[in-house]
Amino acid sequence: MNATPADRQRPIIGFLTDFGLDGAAATCRGVMLSICREAQIVDICHTVRKYAIADAAYLLISALPYLPIGVHVAVVDPGVGTERRPLALRAGRGDILIGPDNGLLPPAADALGGIAEARVLEDPRWWLATTTSTFHGRDIFSPVAAHLAAGDASLADVGPPLPSGEVVRLPAPHAEVSDGVIQTWVRYIDSFGNIRLTGTLPDLAAAFGPMHHETAFEVEIGLSGAARHETIDFAQTFGSVSAGAALLYIDSSGDLALADNQGNAAARLGAQVGQPVRITRS
Amino acid sequence: MNATPADRQRPIIGFLTDFGLDGAAATCRGVMLSICREAQIVDICHTVRKYAIADAAYLLISALPYLPIGVHVAVVDPGVGTERRPLALRAGRGDILIGPDNGLLPPAADALGGIAEARVLEDPRWWLATTTSTFHGRDIFSPVAAHLAAGDASLADVGPPLPSGEVVRLPAPHAEVSDGVIQTWVRYIDSFGNIRLTGTLPDLAAAFGPMHHETAFEVEIGLSGAARHETIDFAQTFGSVSAGAALLYIDSSGDLALADNQGNAAARLGAQVGQPVRITRS
Amino acid sequence: MNATPADRQRPIIGFLTDFGLDGAAATCRGVMLSICREAQIVDICHTVRKYAIADAAYLLISALPYLPIGVHVAVVDPGVGTERRPLALRAGRGDILIGPDNGLLPPAADALGGIAEARVLEDPRWWLATTTSTFHGRDIFSPVAAHLAAGDASLADVGPPLPSGEVVRLPAPHAEVSDGVIQTWVRYIDSFGNIRLTGTLPDLAAAFGPMHHETAFEVEIGLSGAARHETIDFAQTFGSVSAGAALLYIDSSGDLALADNQGNAAARLGAQVGQPVRITRS
Repeated sequence: MNATPADRQRPIIGFLTDFGLDGAAATCRGVMLSICREAQIVDICHTVRKYAIADAAYLLISALPYLPIGVHVAVVDPGVGTERRPLALRAGRGDILIGPDNGLLPPAADALGGIAEARVLEDPRWWLATTTSTFHGRDIFSPVAAHLAAGDASLADVGPPLPSGEVVRLPAPHAEVSDGVIQTWVRYIDSFGNIRLTGTLPDLAAAFGPMHHETAFEVEIGLSGAARHETIDFAQTFGSVSAGAALLYIDSSGDLALADNQGNAAARLGAQVGQPVRITRS
Repeated sequence: MNATPADRQRPIIGFLTDFGLDGAAATCRGVMLSICREAQIVDICHTVRKYAIADAAYLLISALPYLPIGVHVAVVDPGVGTERRPLALRAGRGDILIGPDNGLLPPAADALGGIAEARVLEDPRWWLATTTSTFHGRDIFSPVAAHLAAGDASLADVGPPLPSGEVVRLPAPHAEVSDGVIQTWVRYIDSFGNIRLTGTLPDLAAAFGPMHHETAFEVEIGLSGAARHETIDFAQTFGSVSAGAALLYIDSSGDLALADNQGNAAARLGAQVGQPVRITRS
Repeated sequence: MNATPADRQRPIIGFLTDFGLDGAAATCRGVMLSICREAQIVDICHTVRKYAIADAAYLLISALPYLPIGVHVAVVDPGVGTERRPLALRAGRGDILIGPDNGLLPPAADALGGIAEARVLEDPRWWLATTTSTFHGRDIFSPVAAHLAAGDASLADVGPPLPSGEVVRLPAPHAEVSDGVIQTWVRYIDSFGNIRLTGTLPDLAAAFGPMHHETAFEVEIGLSGAARHETIDFAQTFGSVSAGAALLYIDSSGDLALADNQGNAAARLGAQVGQPVRITRS
C-alpha cells in the first residue's frame, strides 16, 4: 500500500454494511476520505438484511474475489459497544479485512487465500479522537481501514495478534449428500428472489450421478409438515425454461440455486434463509 | 481512450442494471476496476424494475447524454445464457454501449448521435477466464467494457461487426396526435410517482393549439371501461398547483408527464407502465 | 480548490437528494463530472423521504462534519421552479453548500462553523445552457457546484450576496427540560428504526440529575390520548439490553434516542417524525 512508483494506483477500500441508504455509510466514507483522500471506495452493499451476519458473509465471499486487492471494511455488528472484539484479518491474497469479530470476516478471508494474520484493533491512534458506543463503523473500523490503505499504519500497528484459531466463526454452510438425496439449506435470497442453496454441482452429481439438463427433481422446501413440494427441472440458465417456470441450476458461484424464470421464486415459495430444502429424483 | 497526455483523464464507465443493491453490481465494479484501475464508474441505476428492458432504456436515454463520453454497461438481461447476442454499439458522440442485444441499448445510442458501429462480443480474450450461464454482467459485459476503457482493446477487437439494421429494437414510444385529442401511454413511473408519458410539447400544441398554463384537460388513464378520469391543469412546475393537486407538465426531458404536487400520482391513480392515457380538452 | 501543487487532491462534492435511486441523481453526477472530471462525488443519501426538508437537514448535519472540506449539493426541493431562491452558503470550515433556500442548508452550515457568506445563484454562466422548471438539481445546482469545485468559478461569481439573516431557516429542533421531565420530539427515524430525538445528555442530566445506566424511565410517545407508554432503561449500547428489548441511549451524534436491540423500535411503536415524546422517571 506504500506509494512506491510501481503502485501509485489508488488504494481500494471495499465497503459493506447493514447501515441502509440513509447517511451512516456516507459518514464512514467521509471518514475514510478524510484520512486517505486517494482511496477508491467500492461500495459492495449497504442493504444487508439488518443484523444478518451470514448474509453479509455470503455477499463478501461472492464479491471480494472479484475486487482488486485492498483493505475491505464490513460492518454488520449487533454487538457494537459490547465485549466483541474489533478485528483485522490479512488474507492470503494480500487483502486486509476489517470488522467485528462475530463471524462476518473469516469466510471471505478463506475465499481470499485463508487467514494469514489476525489482529485485534486496540491501538486508538488509528481511531477517531472521540469514539461512541454505537457507531464503531465510523469511529474505529473506517479510520483504521483508511490509515492502512494510506500506508500510515501497517497491520502490526493496529493492535496485538490473535491466533487465527481464536477468531469467531459461524457454522460453515454445508449440504448433506446421500444416494438419491441431497439435503441442503437456503443460504441467501438475492434481489431477484433467486434462492441460493448450500451445496455444489459435485454434490448433486454425488447424489444423482452425472447431471443432465432437463432432468426433473422433487424439491421440498421448508420443514416437513409445512413443506412445499415442487417438481423442478435442472436447467442451464433462466431462459432455458418458459417464463414463470422454476428451475434448479448451478449459480454463478458454482452453488445450487432455485429460481423462477423472470419471476421471484422466494416470494412465490415463501422461502427464508435457513430453511431446509430436500432434493430427490422426480 | 488511450493514455495520451491530452486525455489522461480517468475513463468513464456508466453502469446500469436491474441487479438490485445486494452485491452483484459490486462484483461487476470489482471486475472493471481489476482491469481498469483508473476507471471512474458512474452508477446510473441498479434498481431498474426486474427484467424491464424499456424502463432501463428510458433511464439510459435520460442520463447518458449528461455523462461524459465513455464506455457504458447496461444489463437488464432476462435472456442471459440463451442465444441472444452480447453487443457493443458505438454511438455518434463517441460513447460505446455494452449489453445484451435485446433492445436495451439502441435508444440511448440514438440519443448519443446514432449507431455508428455495432459489434457482437465474441472474442473471449476480453472476457473473464471462466464464464457462467447466468452472470454475463460479471463474466462478459464488465470485462469487455473495462478493456475498452483501459485501451487494451479497441472496438474492432471485441468481435465481428453487425449491420446496425440487425440490432434488436423495441417498438419506439410514440403518441397519436389528432385534432383535440392526444393518445399517449405511460412510459415510465419515476421514484416520485410522476407519470412520464410518450409525446412532447409540440405534440400537445399540434392537438390543442398554442398551450397556456392553467388550461384544464380531461385525462383518461387506463383502458376504457376501467379508466380513471381526471381534470388536470397544464402547469409549469409542481409548485404551480396547490399541494396534493395534479398537474400535466412538460418534464425535464421535454416530454409529457403527470404528477401530484408533493404527492405520488402513480400510486393514487394506480398507473402502470404501458397503460393508455387519453388527453382531451376539458 | 485551485490546482496548486499543495492541494492537487481531487475536489470533494458531497451529494444528497430525495431523487431516489432511479437515474436522476446519476444524471446530476454526469453533469458534475462533465464539468469537473476530477471531482470525487461522495453520495450522502438519495433516499431522503420525499419532500422531507428536515430529514435531509438532519442527514447533512450528521454526515458533512465527517467529510473532507468540499462543495456539497443538497436537493430536497418541493418548490423547484417557483420563487424560492437557489442558494450557495460558505461555511466557517470552508465548505460551500449548494441547494434551494428552503431551510435545508443552514443547519449543516452551522455544524461546519456557521454561515460565513451567502449568495443567490443568479448568474446563468454556471448553469446548463438550457434549464427546465422541474430539475434544477441537474440544470443549476449540479453545474454551479462543479464549476466551484473545478475552480472555474469562485463563490463571488455565482450571484449577488444575501445577508445571512435572510436565509430561510426551519424552526430549530429543541427539547423542553424541567425538573423530572424532558419533553422531546421525534427528529428522525433511521434505517434501523431507531428513533432519534431532540435533546442531549446534558438535557437529560438537567432533568434527572447525573445519569446512570440501567436507570428506568417512563417514555410516552405520541399525543396524550393516543400515546404509547413504555418503561425503558437508559443503556450504553444496543447489546446492553436483551435482544428485542428497548433502550434509551445517547446516539453517535450525542443526542437522545430510542431503539430496540436487534429490532425496529419505530415500526413497533408506530413512531413518526414530529411526534412528541415525554420522558419521566419511572
